[in-house]
Amino acid sequence: MREIEGGITAPRGFEAAGVHCGIKKAHPDLALIYSSSPAVACGMFTTNKVKAAPIQVSLRKLRNRQAQAIVVNSGNANTCTGRQGIKDAEEMAAMAARELQISEDEVLVASTGVIGKSLPLSKIAEGIRGASQSLSPQGGGEAARAILTTDTTAKEISVETDIAGRGKRKVRIGGICKGAGMISPNLATMLCFITTDACITPDALQEATRSAAGKSFNQISVDGDMSTNDTLLVLANGLAGNKRIKTWRKKKKTRVKDENFDLFSRALDFVLIHLAKLIISDGEGATKFIEVKVNGAPFPKDARRIARAVANSNLVKAALAGASPNWGRVMAALGAAHTKINPDKVDIYFDDLRVVKRGMGAGTKDKILRDLLRSKDIRITIDLNQGKNSTTFWGCDLTEKYVRINKSYL
Amino acid sequence: MREIEGGITAPRGFEAAGVHCGIKKAHPDLALIYSSSPAVACGMFTTNKVKAAPIQVSLRKLRNRQAQAIVVNSGNANTCTGRQGIKDAEEMAAMAARELQISEDEVLVASTGVIGKSLPLSKIAEGIRGASQSLSPQGGGEAARAILTTDTTAKEISVETDIAGRGKRKVRIGGICKGAGMISPNLATMLCFITTDACITPDALQEATRSAAGKSFNQISVDGDMSTNDTLLVLANGLAGNKRIKTWRKKKKTRVKDENFDLFSRALDFVLIHLAKLIISDGEGATKFIEVKVNGAPFPKDARRIARAVANSNLVKAALAGASPNWGRVMAALGAAHTKINPDKVDIYFDDLRVVKRGMGAGTKDKILRDLLRSKDIRITIDLNQGKNSTTFWGCDLTEKYVRINKSYL
Repeated sequence: MREIEGGITAPRGFEAAGVHCGIKKAHPDLALIYSSSPAVACGMFTTNKVKAAPIQVSLRKLRNRQAQAIVVNSGNANTCTGRQGIKDAEEMAAMAARELQISEDEVLVASTGVIGKSLPLSKIAEGIRGASQSLSPQGGGEAARAILTTDTTAKEISVETDIAGRGKRKVRIGGICKGAGMISPNLATMLCFITTDACITPDALQEATRSAAGKSFNQISVDGDMSTNDTLLVLANGLAGNKRIKTWRKKKKTRVKDENFDLFSRALDFVLIHLAKLIISDGEGATKFIEVKVNGAPFPKDARRIARAVANSNLVKAALAGASPNWGRVMAALGAAHTKINPDKVDIYFDDLRVVKRGMGAGTKDKILRDLLRSKDIRITIDLNQGKNSTTFWGCDLTEKYVRINKSYL
Repeated sequence: MREIEGGITAPRGFEAAGVHCGIKKAHPDLALIYSSSPAVACGMFTTNKVKAAPIQVSLRKLRNRQAQAIVVNSGNANTCTGRQGIKDAEEMAAMAARELQISEDEVLVASTGVIGKSLPLSKIAEGIRGASQSLSPQGGGEAARAILTTDTTAKEISVETDIAGRGKRKVRIGGICKGAGMISPNLATMLCFITTDACITPDALQEATRSAAGKSFNQISVDGDMSTNDTLLVLANGLAGNKRIKTWRKKKKTRVKDENFDLFSRALDFVLIHLAKLIISDGEGATKFIEVKVNGAPFPKDARRIARAVANSNLVKAALAGASPNWGRVMAALGAAHTKINPDKVDIYFDDLRVVKRGMGAGTKDKILRDLLRSKDIRITIDLNQGKNSTTFWGCDLTEKYVRINKSYL
């Protein structure tokens, strides 16, 4: 597997565009992603009980597990907008379908931006018209920019991997995303769109996506606040011409794992983890990227709960912002996670430096620690020493800028 | 029931003192609370897996449900200090026992301050000597000051209530506490000490305390971070001479509720809720007191989870700090709580102004909302309209000052 250029338009048969239609004042605010042939599709969405209208519409459209286009607007979340919001999201998909001359069942839809305002449909109609006219196999970057809200950089990646069978075939995967930064008030979303030319069954695509999301977007947090619009959509159009990837294949009448599934899965993991880390690096007000690794947990859920509790602790995050060598806060945060671990067995490392040994301070000099914590990349390793389960979680620090950003009204 | 003067030394037979023994540079750092006769005692402690040594020691001493004194230091949490920490906490209690000439089983102990440093026992010995010599029935205020770390004000209250039987008897309850402000790094504690001259059974005292804590300290949050040292201790010495309060009493061979238990319980609720609110008002960097009331929940736990999620949301808290009329954030936070509620039935009020009606914006003018949110006291009422359960939770806003405080090293 290797990184290649092109983002979501790197895989064969995909075109994209990003335009400005006037939902936002000056920035691009509408993106269109299109596959020249119908693609196997799957999605994952926020588990927030308050779900944006476009999520409800895309969920319905995904029932047939096939799609050919995704239309996305930024600047308006179409959330808490009632029945009208659902109609608007459906109309937005229908508009794109008309322009692209495909069935409206084949168009998925996503929104991000202010909660509680109606979609400006006439502006969106205009945007969809413009975008469909400027669709291009080089349009991935434009689309990446058009889905941003207050992110400071566009986030994209593409990779190529070899899939065995019918001669070696090069399968490509591209992805774009926007961050969970809720910079203007009520802006609230992680959006991620993945394209691939892999030929793959719907089940295998769903399984690979679920697994990759579990290792990436479900392992990051900017502020612990869950959005109403989080959306991950994946389109696989099969144009690489590879032997169809399945979750399992038959071999001498028994079911064995398809090794191509592992190859594809590993590439998808890489893409999603890369994008998830880009979101963290661009977290609101963040000055530091923080990796929390938990080893030696009795159960996988203990590892996850502890990693999440430490990465989400305001006190840990503020301490790291100030390069303050407070391992006591890490101990307090891990003890507060809902587990049955024994704190007297815990070792903690900041980078490779042990700061806690068996639940007590390891006597590390504060000055050395402080120097180490001035780095922009901080790795906290927590060895629970009471089992065999591990996890890695990514977060960022908590700064005055985060508060300032979130205090101010749009 | 009425408020009276005197704090923890208002109830008969209690004396207290607060002195400076040198753990902290300039501020009082050691408090002693003493009852002239042995008292029924109970306690509640942090559920953090990382528990301070004094908590482990007090838990053991509370097994006989009786105590006569409490010794408390601030400036050092005696947490993550291993076996030596336990020995030090035991020695601290033993020192106080020697000075007061009572059994060391009768002395409870608490600490707050830096995590991971050994207690300076010689300073503490000196402090205990000084405090025992200056014990006084007017010493409640001094003790209230000596348990503070970075709180900006001392927190105390006392009340008197009538208990029926043997003629009316006036029972007094006094309380002091310190906040969960974790201002210097690793400072981490809510401490609360309650004295009463009520005559009450250990079971009834435990039950009243558990119930009052559920309505007060378990319903507040400054930053969602749980401390390693949280301690609530209650001493009831019986000197009011009232008929002994029980949870239940026998009446014609059946078990009925003791009405005096309700009277006592109500007074204790008042004292604990008052102290809990004082902690919130003095939260780190806080500029606003926020009450989150949830009504109409299908189950009590739904109400609690939603109230807690909203009051703990960094985005809600930062928005309120900036008087930003973001009801969308309240919707996002309540939807993220682990419940099965239907968001389309939800109404939300800021004070008495409805901002969300059946899950959608109620069309309130932003300017009006912004003016309302400039208040120092903000009441958010969430009517779920899908059941009969309610709860009230208290929190504070999230400000740049909170981050600044928690960034800087001691």
